[in-house]
Amino acid sequence: MTFTEKLTRSIRSSNSVLSVGLDPNPDKIPLPLRRQIDDTHDLVFEFCRRVIESTKSEAAAYKPNLAFFEALGTGGWEVMESLLDVIPHGKIIIADAKRGDIGTTAEKYKTAFFDRLQVDAITLNPLMGLETLDPFLDDSSKAVYVLTMTSNRGASDFLQKPIQGKLTLGEYISEKLCKKQDHSAARIGMVIGATQTEISRQILSANSDAPLLIPGIGAQGGDPTLLKKLLDTHNGLPLINSSRGIIYAGEDNENWEELVAVKASETRQLLDPITQHYKTQK
Amino acid sequence: MTFTEKLTRSIRSSNSVLSVGLDPNPDKIPLPLRRQIDDTHDLVFEFCRRVIESTKSEAAAYKPNLAFFEALGTGGWEVMESLLDVIPHGKIIIADAKRGDIGTTAEKYKTAFFDRLQVDAITLNPLMGLETLDPFLDDSSKAVYVLTMTSNRGASDFLQKPIQGKLTLGEYISEKLCKKQDHSAARIGMVIGATQTEISRQILSANSDAPLLIPGIGAQGGDPTLLKKLLDTHNGLPLINSSRGIIYAGEDNENWEELVAVKASETRQLLDPITQHYKTQK
Repeated sequence: MTFTEKLTRSIRSSNSVLSVGLDPNPDKIPLPLRRQIDDTHDLVFEFCRRVIESTKSEAAAYKPNLAFFEALGTGGWEVMESLLDVIPHGKIIIADAKRGDIGTTAEKYKTAFFDRLQVDAITLNPLMGLETLDPFLDDSSKAVYVLTMTSNRGASDFLQKPIQGKLTLGEYISEKLCKKQDHSAARIGMVIGATQTEISRQILSANSDAPLLIPGIGAQGGDPTLLKKLLDTHNGLPLINSSRGIIYAGEDNENWEELVAVKASETRQLLDPITQHYKTQK
Repeated sequence: MTFTEKLTRSIRSSNSVLSVGLDPNPDKIPLPLRRQIDDTHDLVFEFCRRVIESTKSEAAAYKPNLAFFEALGTGGWEVMESLLDVIPHGKIIIADAKRGDIGTTAEKYKTAFFDRLQVDAITLNPLMGLETLDPFLDDSSKAVYVLTMTSNRGASDFLQKPIQGKLTLGEYISEKLCKKQDHSAARIGMVIGATQTEISRQILSANSDAPLLIPGIGAQGGDPTLLKKLLDTHNGLPLINSSRGIIYAGEDNENWEELVAVKASETRQLLDPITQHYKTQK
Protein backbone atom coordinates (compact mmCIF):
# COMPACT_ATOMS: atom_id res chain seq x y z
CA MET A 1 0.00 0.00 0.00
CA THR A 2 1.38 3.45 -0.82
CA PHE A 3 1.67 6.06 1.88
CA THR A 4 -1.12 8.10 0.27
CA GLU A 5 -3.43 5.07 0.27
CA LYS A 6 -2.65 4.34 3.90
CA LEU A 7 -3.19 7.99 4.86
CA THR A 8 -6.48 8.16 2.94
CA ARG A 9 -7.74 5.01 4.67
CA SER A 10 -6.65 6.22 8.04
CA ILE A 11 -8.45 9.57 7.65
CA ARG A 12 -11.58 7.84 6.33
CA SER A 13 -11.78 5.14 8.95
CA SER A 14 -11.20 7.52 11.85
CA ASN A 15 -13.25 10.26 10.16
CA SER A 16 -10.54 12.59 11.36
CA VAL A 17 -7.43 14.51 10.28
CA LEU A 18 -6.19 14.67 13.87
CA SER A 19 -2.66 13.60 14.76
CA VAL A 20 -1.97 13.17 18.46
CA GLY A 21 1.56 14.13 19.44
CA LEU A 22 3.24 12.00 22.08
CA ASP A 23 5.50 14.37 24.06
CA PRO A 24 5.61 12.58 27.42
CA ASN A 25 7.11 14.77 30.12
CA PRO A 26 7.41 12.69 33.35
CA ASP A 27 6.74 15.77 35.51
CA LYS A 28 3.47 16.49 33.75
CA ILE A 29 2.05 12.98 33.83
CA PRO A 30 -1.19 12.95 35.90
CA LEU A 31 -0.49 12.49 39.60
CA PRO A 32 -2.85 9.50 40.04
CA LEU A 33 -0.69 7.55 37.60
CA ARG A 34 2.58 8.85 39.07
CA ARG A 35 1.44 7.55 42.47
CA GLN A 36 0.96 4.06 41.00
CA ILE A 37 4.21 3.68 39.05
CA ASP A 38 7.67 4.49 40.40
CA ASP A 39 9.90 3.62 37.49
CA THR A 40 10.07 6.56 35.07
CA HIS A 41 10.32 4.41 31.95
CA ASP A 42 7.34 2.29 32.95
CA LEU A 43 5.44 5.44 33.87
CA VAL A 44 6.06 7.07 30.49
CA PHE A 45 5.11 3.88 28.67
CA GLU A 46 1.89 3.41 30.62
CA PHE A 47 0.92 7.08 30.29
CA CYS A 48 1.37 7.02 26.52
CA ARG A 49 -0.37 3.65 26.23
CA ARG A 50 -3.43 5.04 28.00
CA VAL A 51 -3.35 8.25 25.96
CA ILE A 52 -3.36 6.13 22.81
CA GLU A 53 -6.19 3.99 24.19
CA SER A 54 -8.22 7.12 25.08
CA THR A 55 -7.74 8.81 21.72
CA LYS A 56 -7.64 6.00 19.20
CA SER A 57 -11.19 6.53 17.94
CA GLU A 58 -10.45 10.22 17.32
CA ALA A 59 -6.99 10.15 15.75
CA ALA A 60 -5.79 9.31 12.26
CA ALA A 61 -2.15 9.48 13.31
CA TYR A 62 0.29 9.47 16.21
CA LYS A 63 3.45 11.54 16.29
CA PRO A 64 5.99 10.45 18.91
CA ASN A 65 8.51 13.22 19.57
CA LEU A 66 11.98 11.71 19.82
CA ALA A 67 13.36 14.33 22.21
CA PHE A 68 11.07 13.21 25.01
CA PHE A 69 12.24 9.62 24.74
CA GLU A 70 15.93 10.47 24.34
CA ALA A 71 15.66 12.63 27.47
CA LEU A 72 14.84 9.48 29.47
CA GLY A 73 18.45 8.37 29.00
CA THR A 74 19.35 4.67 28.89
CA GLY A 75 16.37 2.70 27.66
CA GLY A 76 14.40 5.74 26.48
CA TRP A 77 14.64 4.71 22.85
CA GLU A 78 13.23 1.29 23.80
CA VAL A 79 10.24 2.85 25.57
CA MET A 80 9.32 4.48 22.29
CA GLU A 81 9.91 1.27 20.38
CA SER A 82 7.50 -0.59 22.70
CA LEU A 83 4.92 2.14 22.28
CA LEU A 84 4.89 1.78 18.53
CA ASP A 85 3.63 -1.76 19.08
CA VAL A 86 0.53 -0.57 20.95
CA ILE A 87 -0.55 1.98 18.35
CA PRO A 88 -3.50 0.42 16.52
CA HIS A 89 -2.84 -1.02 13.09
CA GLY A 90 -3.92 1.38 10.36
CA LYS A 91 -2.94 4.58 12.15
CA ILE A 92 -0.18 6.64 10.55
CA ILE A 93 2.95 6.85 12.72
CA ILE A 94 5.19 9.88 12.24
CA ALA A 95 8.54 9.99 14.03
CA ASP A 96 9.04 13.64 14.92
CA ALA A 97 12.82 13.55 14.70
CA LYS A 98 13.68 16.55 12.49
CA ARG A 99 16.84 14.85 11.32
CA GLY A 100 18.91 16.31 8.51
CA ASP A 101 22.32 15.09 7.43
CA ILE A 102 24.26 13.90 4.41
CA GLY A 103 25.52 10.73 2.75
CA THR A 104 26.04 7.71 4.93
CA THR A 105 24.74 9.56 7.99
CA ALA A 106 21.39 10.21 6.33
CA GLU A 107 21.31 6.57 5.23
CA LYS A 108 21.82 5.47 8.83
CA TYR A 109 18.96 7.68 10.01
CA LYS A 110 16.83 6.08 7.31
CA THR A 111 17.82 2.64 8.67
CA ALA A 112 17.01 3.71 12.21
CA PHE A 113 13.55 5.05 11.44
CA PHE A 114 12.22 3.22 8.39
CA ASP A 115 13.92 -0.19 8.74
CA ARG A 116 14.26 -0.56 12.51
CA LEU A 117 11.38 1.42 14.01
CA GLN A 118 9.27 0.92 10.85
CA VAL A 119 7.41 4.19 11.19
CA ASP A 120 5.39 5.42 8.21
CA ALA A 121 6.93 8.86 8.11
CA ILE A 122 9.62 11.06 9.61
CA THR A 123 10.02 14.83 9.94
CA LEU A 124 13.20 16.12 8.28
CA ASN A 125 15.17 19.38 8.37
CA PRO A 126 16.33 20.41 4.86
CA LEU A 127 18.91 23.10 5.80
CA MET A 128 21.95 21.13 4.58
CA GLY A 129 20.38 20.75 1.14
CA LEU A 130 17.94 18.62 -0.81
CA GLU A 131 20.34 15.68 -1.04
CA THR A 132 19.73 15.12 2.68
CA LEU A 133 16.28 13.78 1.77
CA ASP A 134 17.43 11.26 -0.84
CA PRO A 135 17.99 8.16 1.30
CA PHE A 136 14.39 8.42 2.54
CA LEU A 137 12.71 8.62 -0.87
CA ASP A 138 12.94 5.12 -2.36
CA ASP A 139 9.89 3.51 -0.80
CA SER A 140 6.36 4.46 -1.87
CA SER A 141 4.92 3.21 1.42
CA LYS A 142 6.81 5.95 3.31
CA ALA A 143 6.66 9.73 3.60
CA VAL A 144 8.88 12.52 4.80
CA TYR A 145 7.52 15.76 6.22
CA VAL A 146 10.03 18.52 5.57
CA LEU A 147 10.21 21.62 7.77
CA THR A 148 8.96 24.41 5.54
CA MET A 149 7.24 27.00 7.76
CA THR A 150 7.24 26.25 11.46
CA SER A 151 4.76 27.52 14.05
CA ASN A 152 7.23 29.28 16.39
CA ARG A 153 8.19 32.96 16.42
CA GLY A 154 11.74 32.00 15.39
CA ALA A 155 10.34 31.05 11.97
CA SER A 156 10.84 34.74 11.19
CA ASP A 157 14.63 34.45 11.71
CA PHE A 158 15.27 32.44 8.56
CA LEU A 159 12.20 30.71 7.03
CA GLN A 160 10.30 33.97 6.50
CA LYS A 161 13.28 35.89 5.11
CA PRO A 162 13.42 36.58 1.37
CA ILE A 163 15.96 34.42 -0.40
CA GLN A 164 17.29 35.29 -3.84
CA GLY A 165 15.32 38.50 -3.73
CA LYS A 166 11.73 37.37 -4.18
CA LEU A 167 10.60 34.19 -2.45
CA THR A 168 10.88 33.57 1.26
CA LEU A 169 13.10 30.68 2.26
CA GLY A 170 9.94 28.70 3.11
CA GLU A 171 8.46 29.33 -0.34
CA TYR A 172 11.74 28.45 -1.97
CA ILE A 173 11.91 25.15 -0.05
CA SER A 174 8.32 24.41 -1.11
CA GLU A 175 9.13 24.92 -4.82
CA LYS A 176 12.19 22.71 -4.56
CA LEU A 177 10.22 19.95 -2.83
CA CYS A 178 7.54 20.06 -5.52
CA LYS A 179 10.15 19.43 -8.20
CA LYS A 180 11.81 16.70 -6.15
CA GLN A 181 8.53 14.81 -5.83
CA ASP A 182 8.62 14.01 -9.57
CA HIS A 183 11.62 11.73 -9.06
CA SER A 184 10.66 10.20 -5.71
CA ALA A 185 8.72 7.09 -4.77
CA ALA A 186 8.05 8.22 -1.19
CA ARG A 187 5.65 11.10 -0.61
CA ILE A 188 7.33 14.40 0.19
CA GLY A 189 5.18 16.37 2.60
CA MET A 190 5.66 19.69 4.35
CA VAL A 191 5.49 20.81 7.97
CA ILE A 192 3.47 24.04 8.05
CA GLY A 193 2.70 25.78 11.34
CA ALA A 194 -1.00 26.33 12.05
CA THR A 195 -0.10 29.76 13.43
CA GLN A 196 1.29 30.82 10.03
CA THR A 197 -1.80 30.70 7.83
CA GLU A 198 -1.26 33.97 5.93
CA ILE A 199 2.45 33.43 5.48
CA SER A 200 1.85 29.89 4.23
CA ARG A 201 -0.57 30.69 1.41
CA GLN A 202 2.15 31.00 -1.23
CA ILE A 203 4.03 28.01 0.17
CA LEU A 204 0.99 25.79 -0.29
CA SER A 205 0.13 27.01 -3.77
CA ALA A 206 3.70 26.29 -4.91
CA ASN A 207 3.30 22.63 -3.91
CA SER A 208 -0.42 21.99 -3.88
CA ASP A 209 -0.36 18.18 -3.89
CA ALA A 210 2.00 17.79 -0.93
CA PRO A 211 0.64 16.11 2.18
CA LEU A 212 0.86 18.44 5.16
CA LEU A 213 1.73 17.98 8.79
CA ILE A 214 0.35 20.96 10.66
CA PRO A 215 1.41 21.50 14.27
CA GLY A 216 0.40 24.53 16.29
CA ILE A 217 -3.25 24.04 17.10
CA GLY A 218 -4.05 23.46 20.77
CA ALA A 219 -1.38 24.82 23.13
CA GLN A 220 0.20 26.99 20.42
CA GLY A 221 -3.08 28.69 19.51
CA GLY A 222 -3.54 28.11 15.76
CA ASP A 223 -7.10 28.80 14.56
CA PRO A 224 -8.96 25.89 12.85
CA THR A 225 -11.23 28.29 10.94
CA LEU A 226 -8.34 30.17 9.37
CA LEU A 227 -6.71 26.84 8.70
CA LYS A 228 -9.79 25.56 6.90
CA LYS A 229 -9.72 28.62 4.62
CA LEU A 230 -6.06 28.06 3.85
CA LEU A 231 -6.63 24.41 3.02
CA ASP A 232 -9.70 24.96 0.83
CA THR A 233 -7.52 25.16 -2.27
CA HIS A 234 -4.92 22.57 -1.26
CA ASN A 235 -5.07 19.05 -2.68
CA GLY A 236 -2.57 17.18 -0.51
CA LEU A 237 -4.03 15.47 2.56
CA PRO A 238 -3.37 17.21 5.88
CA LEU A 239 -2.75 15.83 9.33
CA ILE A 240 -3.28 18.38 12.05
CA ASN A 241 -1.37 17.77 15.23
CA SER A 242 -2.06 18.57 18.84
CA SER A 243 0.27 17.30 21.56
CA ARG A 244 0.19 18.98 24.99
CA GLY A 245 -3.33 20.32 24.44
CA ILE A 246 -4.65 16.76 24.37
CA ILE A 247 -2.30 14.51 26.32
CA TYR A 248 -2.25 16.70 29.45
CA ALA A 249 -5.94 17.67 29.23
CA GLY A 250 -6.68 15.50 32.30
CA GLU A 251 -4.21 17.41 34.48
CA ASP A 252 -4.03 15.65 37.87
CA ASN A 253 -7.63 14.50 37.93
CA GLU A 254 -8.53 10.94 38.86
CA ASN A 255 -10.57 10.64 35.65
CA TRP A 256 -7.76 12.05 33.52
CA GLU A 257 -8.13 9.44 30.80
CA GLU A 258 -11.74 10.40 30.27
CA LEU A 259 -10.77 14.08 30.04
CA VAL A 260 -8.10 13.23 27.47
CA ALA A 261 -10.72 11.35 25.44
CA VAL A 262 -13.12 14.31 25.65
CA LYS A 263 -10.44 16.76 24.56
CA ALA A 264 -9.43 14.56 21.62
CA SER A 265 -13.06 14.30 20.59
CA GLU A 266 -13.56 18.08 20.82
CA THR A 267 -10.42 18.67 18.78
CA ARG A 268 -11.54 16.21 16.12
CA GLN A 269 -14.88 18.02 15.94
CA LEU A 270 -13.17 21.40 15.60
CA LEU A 271 -11.26 19.96 12.67
CA ASP A 272 -14.32 18.27 11.18
CA PRO A 273 -14.93 20.90 8.46
CA ILE A 274 -11.42 20.16 7.21
CA THR A 275 -11.94 16.40 7.43
CA GLN A 276 -15.21 16.59 5.46
CA HIS A 277 -13.60 18.82 2.84
CA TYR A 278 -10.99 16.17 2.09
CA LYS A 279 -13.41 13.26 2.32
CA THR A 280 -15.63 14.91 -0.31
CA GLN A 281 -12.73 15.76 -2.52
CA LYS A 282 -11.17 12.32 -2.75
CA MET B 1 36.14 24.87 33.91
CA THR B 2 34.65 26.73 30.95
CA PHE B 3 34.34 25.04 27.59
CA THR B 4 37.03 27.31 26.16
CA GLU B 5 39.43 26.39 28.96
CA LYS B 6 38.75 22.72 28.45
CA LEU B 7 39.20 23.02 24.69
CA THR B 8 42.45 24.98 25.09
CA ARG B 9 43.84 22.36 27.46
CA SER B 10 42.79 19.53 25.22
CA ILE B 11 44.47 21.07 22.17
CA ARG B 12 47.63 21.84 24.16
CA SER B 13 47.97 18.48 25.83
CA SER B 14 47.37 16.51 22.63
CA ASN B 15 49.31 19.08 20.56
CA SER B 16 46.53 18.65 18.03
CA VAL B 17 43.36 20.20 16.65
CA LEU B 18 42.20 16.84 15.33
CA SER B 19 38.73 15.52 16.11
CA VAL B 20 38.13 11.87 15.31
CA GLY B 21 34.60 11.16 14.14
CA LEU B 22 33.03 7.91 15.33
CA ASP B 23 30.76 6.75 12.48
CA PRO B 24 30.78 2.99 13.06
CA ASN B 25 29.28 1.11 10.13
CA PRO B 26 29.11 -2.63 11.02
CA ASP B 27 29.73 -3.64 7.39
CA LYS B 28 32.95 -1.63 7.23
CA ILE B 29 34.48 -2.81 10.48
CA PRO B 30 37.75 -4.68 9.76
CA LEU B 31 37.17 -8.34 8.99
CA PRO B 32 39.63 -9.65 11.61
CA LEU B 33 37.47 -8.07 14.30
CA ARG B 34 34.22 -9.15 12.67
CA ARG B 35 35.48 -12.72 12.76
CA GLN B 36 36.02 -12.48 16.51
CA ILE B 37 32.73 -10.88 17.59
CA ASP B 38 29.29 -12.00 16.45
CA ASP B 39 27.02 -9.60 18.28
CA THR B 40 26.68 -6.37 16.30
CA HIS B 41 26.42 -4.15 19.36
CA ASP B 42 29.50 -5.69 20.98
CA LEU B 43 31.31 -5.45 17.67
CA VAL B 44 30.57 -1.74 17.26
CA PHE B 45 31.57 -1.05 20.85
CA GLU B 46 34.85 -2.93 20.56
CA PHE B 47 35.70 -1.38 17.18
CA CYS B 48 35.15 2.14 18.50
CA ARG B 49 37.00 1.35 21.74
CA ARG B 50 40.05 0.24 19.79
CA VAL B 51 39.83 3.23 17.43
CA ILE B 52 39.84 5.50 20.49
CA GLU B 53 42.77 3.57 21.98
CA SER B 54 44.71 3.83 18.70
CA THR B 55 44.10 7.55 18.22
CA LYS B 56 44.04 9.00 21.72
CA SER B 57 47.53 10.47 21.56
CA GLU B 58 46.67 12.25 18.29
CA ALA B 59 43.17 13.59 18.96
CA ALA B 60 41.92 16.57 20.92
CA ALA B 61 38.30 15.52 20.50
CA TYR B 62 35.93 12.71 19.59
CA LYS B 63 32.72 13.21 17.68
CA PRO B 64 30.26 10.30 17.90
CA ASN B 65 27.68 10.51 15.12
CA LEU B 66 24.27 9.66 16.54
CA ALA B 67 22.85 8.24 13.30
CA PHE B 68 25.25 5.28 13.38
CA PHE B 69 24.17 4.32 16.88
CA GLU B 70 20.45 4.87 16.28
CA ALA B 71 20.73 2.63 13.21
CA LEU B 72 21.69 -0.26 15.50
CA GLY B 73 18.12 -0.30 16.79
CA THR B 74 17.32 -1.45 20.33
CA GLY B 75 20.34 -0.85 22.53
CA GLY B 76 22.20 1.32 20.01
CA TRP B 77 21.90 4.40 22.18
CA GLU B 78 23.43 2.42 25.07
CA VAL B 79 26.41 1.35 22.94
CA MET B 80 27.20 5.04 22.48
CA GLU B 81 26.67 5.75 26.16
CA SER B 82 29.18 3.02 27.09
CA LEU B 83 31.67 4.40 24.59
CA LEU B 84 31.63 7.83 26.18
CA ASP B 85 33.01 6.16 29.31
CA VAL B 86 36.10 4.90 27.51
CA ILE B 87 37.05 8.24 25.93
CA PRO B 88 40.01 9.54 27.96
CA HIS B 89 39.31 12.27 30.45
CA GLY B 90 40.27 15.66 29.07
CA LYS B 91 39.22 15.01 25.49
CA ILE B 92 36.36 17.11 24.14
CA ILE B 93 33.28 15.05 23.28
CA ILE B 94 30.94 16.43 20.64
CA ALA B 95 27.62 14.68 20.00
CA ASP B 96 27.03 15.02 16.28
CA ALA B 97 23.26 15.09 16.52
CA LYS B 98 22.25 18.14 14.43
CA ARG B 99 19.11 18.57 16.50
CA GLY B 100 16.96 21.65 16.13
CA ASP B 101 13.56 22.15 17.71
CA ILE B 102 11.58 24.56 19.85
CA GLY B 103 10.40 25.04 23.42
CA THR B 104 10.00 21.96 25.57
CA THR B 105 11.31 19.72 22.78
CA ALA B 106 14.61 21.60 22.64
CA GLU B 107 14.79 21.44 26.44
CA LYS B 108 14.38 17.68 26.30
CA TYR B 109 17.19 17.38 23.76
CA LYS B 110 19.31 19.45 26.11
CA THR B 111 18.46 17.01 28.92
CA ALA B 112 19.31 14.03 26.72
CA PHE B 113 22.71 15.33 25.64
CA PHE B 114 24.04 17.65 28.34
CA ASP B 115 22.45 16.12 31.48
CA ARG B 116 22.19 12.43 30.58
CA LEU B 117 25.05 11.76 28.16
CA GLN B 118 27.10 14.64 29.63
CA VAL B 119 28.85 15.48 26.39
CA ASP B 120 30.77 18.76 26.18
CA ALA B 121 29.13 19.93 23.00
CA ILE B 122 26.42 19.16 20.48
CA THR B 123 25.90 20.08 16.84
CA LEU B 124 22.64 21.97 16.23
CA ASN B 125 20.58 22.92 13.18
CA PRO B 126 19.31 26.53 13.38
CA LEU B 127 16.68 26.45 10.60
CA MET B 128 13.67 26.85 12.94
CA GLY B 129 15.17 30.03 14.41
CA LEU B 130 17.63 31.23 17.00
CA GLU B 131 15.32 30.41 19.91
CA THR B 132 16.02 26.74 19.18
CA LEU B 133 19.50 27.25 20.67
CA ASP B 134 18.37 28.84 23.93
CA PRO B 135 17.96 25.77 26.17
CA PHE B 136 21.58 24.80 25.42
CA LEU B 137 23.17 28.14 26.33
CA ASP B 138 23.01 28.38 30.14
CA ASP B 139 26.13 26.46 31.08
CA SER B 140 29.61 27.91 30.45
CA SER B 141 31.17 24.44 30.50
CA LYS B 142 29.23 23.50 27.34
CA ALA B 143 29.28 24.48 23.68
CA VAL B 144 27.00 24.20 20.69
CA TYR B 145 28.29 23.98 17.13
CA VAL B 146 25.69 25.43 14.81
CA LEU B 147 25.45 24.37 11.15
CA THR B 148 26.57 27.45 9.22
CA MET B 149 28.25 26.26 6.02
CA THR B 150 28.36 22.53 5.50
CA SER B 151 30.86 20.58 3.40
CA ASN B 152 28.40 18.87 1.02
CA ARG B 153 27.33 20.04 -2.44
CA GLY B 154 23.78 20.57 -1.13
CA ALA B 155 25.11 23.54 0.88
CA SER B 156 24.48 25.49 -2.34
CA ASP B 157 20.73 24.76 -2.15
CA PHE B 158 20.08 27.06 0.81
CA LEU B 159 23.16 28.03 2.87
CA GLN B 160 24.95 29.67 -0.06
CA LYS B 161 21.89 31.52 -1.33
CA PRO B 162 21.64 35.28 -0.74
CA ILE B 163 19.12 36.15 1.94
CA GLN B 164 17.69 39.62 2.31
CA GLY B 165 19.54 40.62 -0.84
CA LYS B 166 23.14 40.83 0.34
CA LEU B 167 24.44 38.17 2.71
CA THR B 168 24.28 34.46 2.06
CA LEU B 169 22.16 32.49 4.51
CA GLY B 170 25.40 31.13 6.02
CA GLU B 171 26.78 34.65 6.54
CA TYR B 172 23.49 35.79 7.99
CA ILE B 173 23.47 32.87 10.46
CA SER B 174 27.05 33.75 11.43
CA GLU B 175 26.15 37.37 12.20
CA LYS B 176 23.16 36.30 14.27
CA LEU B 177 25.25 33.81 16.25
CA CYS B 178 27.87 36.47 16.99
CA LYS B 179 25.20 38.71 18.53
CA LYS B 180 23.69 35.84 20.46
CA GLN B 181 27.04 34.99 22.07
CA ASP B 182 26.89 38.26 24.06
CA HIS B 183 23.98 36.92 26.11
CA SER B 184 25.06 33.30 26.41
CA ALA B 185 27.11 31.43 28.99
CA ALA B 186 27.82 28.46 26.72
CA ARG B 187 30.13 28.93 23.75
CA ILE B 188 28.38 29.22 20.42
CA GLY B 189 30.51 27.66 17.72
CA MET B 190 29.98 27.10 14.01
CA VAL B 191 30.20 24.06 11.74
CA ILE B 192 32.12 25.12 8.63
CA GLY B 193 32.92 22.61 5.88
CA ALA B 194 36.61 22.24 5.06
CA THR B 195 35.65 22.04 1.39
CA GLN B 196 34.15 25.56 1.54
CA THR B 197 37.19 27.70 2.32
CA GLU B 198 36.49 30.56 -0.12
CA ILE B 199 32.79 30.69 0.61
CA SER B 200 33.48 30.71 4.36
CA ARG B 201 35.81 33.72 4.50
CA GLN B 202 33.01 36.23 5.13
CA ILE B 203 31.26 33.85 7.53
CA LEU B 204 34.35 33.65 9.71
CA SER B 205 35.10 37.35 9.69
CA ALA B 206 31.53 38.08 10.83
CA ASN B 207 32.05 35.94 13.92
CA SER B 208 35.80 35.81 14.46
CA ASP B 209 35.86 34.56 18.05
CA ALA B 210 33.58 31.56 17.47
CA PRO B 211 35.06 28.11 18.00
CA LEU B 212 34.83 26.07 14.83
CA LEU B 213 34.06 22.47 14.06
CA ILE B 214 35.39 21.73 10.60
CA PRO B 215 34.40 18.47 8.91
CA GLY B 216 35.36 17.60 5.37
CA ILE B 217 39.05 16.78 5.50
CA GLY B 218 39.95 13.17 4.80
CA ALA B 219 37.31 11.28 2.81
CA GLN B 220 35.57 14.52 1.69
CA GLY B 221 38.78 16.05 0.31
CA GLY B 222 39.17 19.40 2.11
CA ASP B 223 42.69 20.87 1.75
CA PRO B 224 44.60 21.58 5.02
CA THR B 225 46.76 24.26 3.34
CA LEU B 226 43.78 26.28 2.16
CA LEU B 227 42.22 25.76 5.56
CA LYS B 228 45.31 27.13 7.31
CA LYS B 229 45.09 30.28 5.17
CA LEU B 230 41.42 30.72 6.03
CA LEU B 231 42.10 30.31 9.75
CA ASP B 232 45.10 32.65 9.89
CA THR B 233 42.84 35.56 10.77
CA HIS B 234 40.34 33.67 12.94
CA ASN B 235 40.57 33.86 16.72
CA GLY B 236 38.18 31.11 17.82
CA LEU B 237 39.74 27.69 18.37
CA PRO B 238 39.12 25.12 15.65
CA LEU B 239 38.61 21.39 15.81
CA ILE B 240 39.13 19.68 12.50
CA ASN B 241 37.31 16.42 12.04
CA SER B 242 38.06 13.30 10.08
CA SER B 243 35.84 10.25 10.43
CA ARG B 244 35.94 7.57 7.72
CA GLY B 245 39.41 8.64 6.56
CA ILE B 246 40.83 7.57 9.91
CA ILE B 247 38.61 4.92 11.43
CA TYR B 248 38.56 2.68 8.34
CA ALA B 249 42.21 3.31 7.41
CA GLY B 250 43.08 -0.26 8.43
CA GLU B 251 40.61 -1.77 5.96
CA ASP B 252 40.57 -5.54 6.50
CA ASN B 253 44.21 -5.87 7.49
CA GLU B 254 45.22 -7.89 10.53
CA ASN B 255 47.20 -4.90 11.83
CA TRP B 256 44.30 -2.50 11.25
CA GLU B 257 44.68 -0.80 14.62
CA GLU B 258 48.25 0.14 13.80
CA LEU B 259 47.18 1.54 10.43
CA VAL B 260 44.47 3.61 12.14
CA ALA B 261 47.10 4.98 14.52
CA VAL B 262 49.41 5.83 11.61
CA LYS B 263 46.62 7.58 9.71
CA ALA B 264 45.62 9.59 12.78
CA SER B 265 49.24 10.59 13.30
CA GLU B 266 49.61 11.64 9.64
CA THR B 267 46.43 13.66 9.83
CA ARG B 268 47.56 15.38 13.01
CA GLN B 269 50.83 16.26 11.30
CA LEU B 270 49.00 17.64 8.25
CA LEU B 271 47.08 19.89 10.62
CA ASP B 272 50.16 20.81 12.65
CA PRO B 273 50.63 24.27 11.07
CA ILE B 274 47.10 25.10 12.25
CA THR B 275 47.74 23.66 15.72
CA GLN B 276 50.96 25.67 16.13
CA HIS B 277 49.23 28.84 14.92
CA TYR B 278 46.68 28.59 17.73
CA LYS B 279 49.20 27.49 20.35
CA THR B 280 51.32 30.56 19.63
CA GLN B 281 48.33 32.85 19.58
CA LYS B 282 46.85 31.86 22.94
